[in-house]
Amino acid sequence: MALQKTLYVGPFIHCRTLTTLDVCTSAVIGVGEDGKIAFVERDVDSSQSPVKQGWEDAKVVRINGSGWFFPGFIDTHIHASQYPNAGIFGKSTLLDWLNTYTFPLESSFTDLKKASRIYKRIVSRTLSHGTTTACYFATIHVPATNLLADICHNKGQRAFVGRVCMDSHLSPDFYRDESPAVSRDNAKACIDHVRSIDPTFDLVSPIITPRFAPSCSAEALDLLGDLHNEMGVPVQTHLCENHPEIALVKELFPGSKHYTDVYDNAGLLSSKTILAHCVHLSAEERDLIKLRNAKISHCPASNAALTSGCAPVKEMLREGMTIGLGTDVSGGYTPSILAECREALFTSRYLCISNEGGGIVNGKTKKTDEIKLSVEEALFMATRGGAKVVGLEDKIGGFEVGMDWDAQLIRLDHVSDGEDETLVNGDVNGGEEATFAEDVGMVDVFGHESWDDRVNKWVYGGDDRNTKAVWVKGRLVHRRQGVSV
Amino acid sequence: MALQKTLYVGPFIHCRTLTTLDVCTSAVIGVGEDGKIAFVERDVDSSQSPVKQGWEDAKVVRINGSGWFFPGFIDTHIHASQYPNAGIFGKSTLLDWLNTYTFPLESSFTDLKKASRIYKRIVSRTLSHGTTTACYFATIHVPATNLLADICHNKGQRAFVGRVCMDSHLSPDFYRDESPAVSRDNAKACIDHVRSIDPTFDLVSPIITPRFAPSCSAEALDLLGDLHNEMGVPVQTHLCENHPEIALVKELFPGSKHYTDVYDNAGLLSSKTILAHCVHLSAEERDLIKLRNAKISHCPASNAALTSGCAPVKEMLREGMTIGLGTDVSGGYTPSILAECREALFTSRYLCISNEGGGIVNGKTKKTDEIKLSVEEALFMATRGGAKVVGLEDKIGGFEVGMDWDAQLIRLDHVSDGEDETLVNGDVNGGEEATFAEDVGMVDVFGHESWDDRVNKWVYGGDDRNTKAVWVKGRLVHRRQGVSV
Repeated sequence: MALQKTLYVGPFIHCRTLTTLDVCTSAVIGVGEDGKIAFVERDVDSSQSPVKQGWEDAKVVRINGSGWFFPGFIDTHIHASQYPNAGIFGKSTLLDWLNTYTFPLESSFTDLKKASRIYKRIVSRTLSHGTTTACYFATIHVPATNLLADICHNKGQRAFVGRVCMDSHLSPDFYRDESPAVSRDNAKACIDHVRSIDPTFDLVSPIITPRFAPSCSAEALDLLGDLHNEMGVPVQTHLCENHPEIALVKELFPGSKHYTDVYDNAGLLSSKTILAHCVHLSAEERDLIKLRNAKISHCPASNAALTSGCAPVKEMLREGMTIGLGTDVSGGYTPSILAECREALFTSRYLCISNEGGGIVNGKTKKTDEIKLSVEEALFMATRGGAKVVGLEDKIGGFEVGMDWDAQLIRLDHVSDGEDETLVNGDVNGGEEATFAEDVGMVDVFGHESWDDRVNKWVYGGDDRNTKAVWVKGRLVHRRQGVSV
Repeated sequence: MALQKTLYVGPFIHCRTLTTLDVCTSAVIGVGEDGKIAFVERDVDSSQSPVKQGWEDAKVVRINGSGWFFPGFIDTHIHASQYPNAGIFGKSTLLDWLNTYTFPLESSFTDLKKASRIYKRIVSRTLSHGTTTACYFATIHVPATNLLADICHNKGQRAFVGRVCMDSHLSPDFYRDESPAVSRDNAKACIDHVRSIDPTFDLVSPIITPRFAPSCSAEALDLLGDLHNEMGVPVQTHLCENHPEIALVKELFPGSKHYTDVYDNAGLLSSKTILAHCVHLSAEERDLIKLRNAKISHCPASNAALTSGCAPVKEMLREGMTIGLGTDVSGGYTPSILAECREALFTSRYLCISNEGGGIVNGKTKKTDEIKLSVEEALFMATRGGAKVVGLEDKIGGFEVGMDWDAQLIRLDHVSDGEDETLVNGDVNGGEEATFAEDVGMVDVFGHESWDDRVNKWVYGGDDRNTKAVWVKGRLVHRRQGVSV
């Protein structure tokens, strides 16, 4: 279905660098029938109608009020199958959490009706949170994994869909591949399916997904490494999430120098590899990851929930590692990358607290800045960082000519000056019924806020209600009720 | 205005003890014309109409679907005047945050139109988050503080409203009381105003509010201590929030044994004193607080945001200290106590991470449980704990006969089995427009969840959209659009 040429008129914001935003308060972005950005005109007079030769018949999407276009979010690590457990983890930590909550749920995805219900919901949900690209772990089941790919393709979400491979060690009897060959063959079957629906992997791509070393045999890892190198399909897995896991890998793979080395030995560590967590990497492991140019998915909500630890993200960024954000549902409680930005900001602050006793003792403020993330850095990881993690930094994550229009329309609610409040509680004295106007988000803009302030309010107080519309490759894939675009 | 006798029919949940919930899946709670709970009938047959002698004409509020009644939340520490800055704090820490963000905003509350706009909004917001009782810091301005009390009274929120007293040291020239006597007299003026609108302080109560030791002279503290002891009006202030603040107090009050002693010397430490933060109390200070039976407001979001530290809450609870939750807007980014529960849970997990390297090294799981808060404990602090902090544990925080009906109706969204999803994204292939059904919260219930699971999902994924209606003293004070009660 062809797209209509569209002019997006209004403010836009994207990340200029890791530490700075580019706020353009009045712009026109032209998106062609191919869903790509044809031109970006800055500092336009918004009172004039945006006329450009060849674009007279274009559709116009104009932002009125307190809003802006922002690049779509990239979730570099999310278990679609675990979504029904979001928020349910008690006081567990990684290894008992897997056995108590995760494996029983995942093993039930032999039921395709159940899989359909859950996968449709999580894809709708992530889109509603502005996630235009997601790296999904499915389950070990080929039919259900293929269904997830179909759903992403139908709903128009850019996705990497991985069948989980797990054949030994920690894998329970009721939920594991029968052999290393089955791990490889079933991974291949899912790659073939995705090729049948999206031959160039333009929207949906397969991704080779060994769960993690503690649930894979060395043989399975080797076979998957071969597949990776033969087919060029990317890889995703977990690495150095918590201490007992790391100890277990040391025990299971005594011939490897360290956890990262297990993947490297199998040929699974390349520039197309996404490593989730990386909370406790040694210096040697970091060097190897940098040497291979592998990528990192930082999952702070999950790492806090399961008390895995605080990944030293600023330090890793400073070393030049490539890092995106991952919600890690359902180790993480939320499918929102915006919420994950907050969690990343707070994780860096907790690291600051534990390293520095509050970060400001004895005037050591320089060190504090070396630990504490800024809102800009969090948003960078959520967009351009994530784009690099999935190898699409030339296509998504920002608004440059030639890139795809993967975007969200953000709007914050403006508090009225007068009595016609959008937020109405009961006038109990008058006896009137109390009501709450529809779809007002939690962020209140009073009018004094700078652009930076608005972005900060959005990051700390915003939610899916502020994401009014979402596009992938120029196509509208989500819109909140009552929003016309 | 008289209330109608009402029967609340459906499940209810409240805290039985610090660590256990009382989940009653089918009940009738009768609330009389005085807004008090007249009876609680458990395990009723919900298919039958609830008939009880004398209640035949009562109104019936019935929960259909996946919901329950829950006690209203108690926010034991919130700066109403700082609400426009929620989410705006950059990388600041307490003392520079005050000068950069807080004092300039607070000092503008000479403008009553501005004050009205902000105060109306924050009271509406806190009600919409299920906060039935709030302990507010206003500003130093008597008229604006009185206006806040009026607004709480009008909107029907139970509130403690405090005029901020600050006359020296850290108080900037443009924003301070002229003298200790003015601090006292203006505090008194606000007490008198509240008495004029609510003679028995039944709904709205004044509260004596020295900002904190670093902005008060010893003389002002003494005068406020006298006022407290003469009038029996409660006290709220800040204590031991971050290290530089504590060092400053040591310098400013060399005659005091410690920070807590400064308040005690002034006669400000009693069973009616609410101490916000208490992140870094010494053992001696804890003993003094316990001796005086003073209360603590734990503000984890703020303590993380400003890298103040992680209050050792479990330890303090174990010692028998009385602790509630405070949003501390705008050190805290959110006016939601539900969000504050999450922050408290995560703060305890970070404490666990920093103390134990993930909490599970060398099998030290017992120690972990001594640090990690449970969802039940967080909800206890949000309700019964907060009730004790404000001295109203016999009136609010749970559903017992004789207590006031301060309650919220919680409902979670149920994911449909079929195609009629409440959450609809674009069918991009069919070219249909994408929509998002109104007011669906973020929590998805799939149907397999136990009651405990639902509560966990609510705490981790819920927001104001799940708080469908709110009552204070039996009166409906908030209702979301489309909800009929």
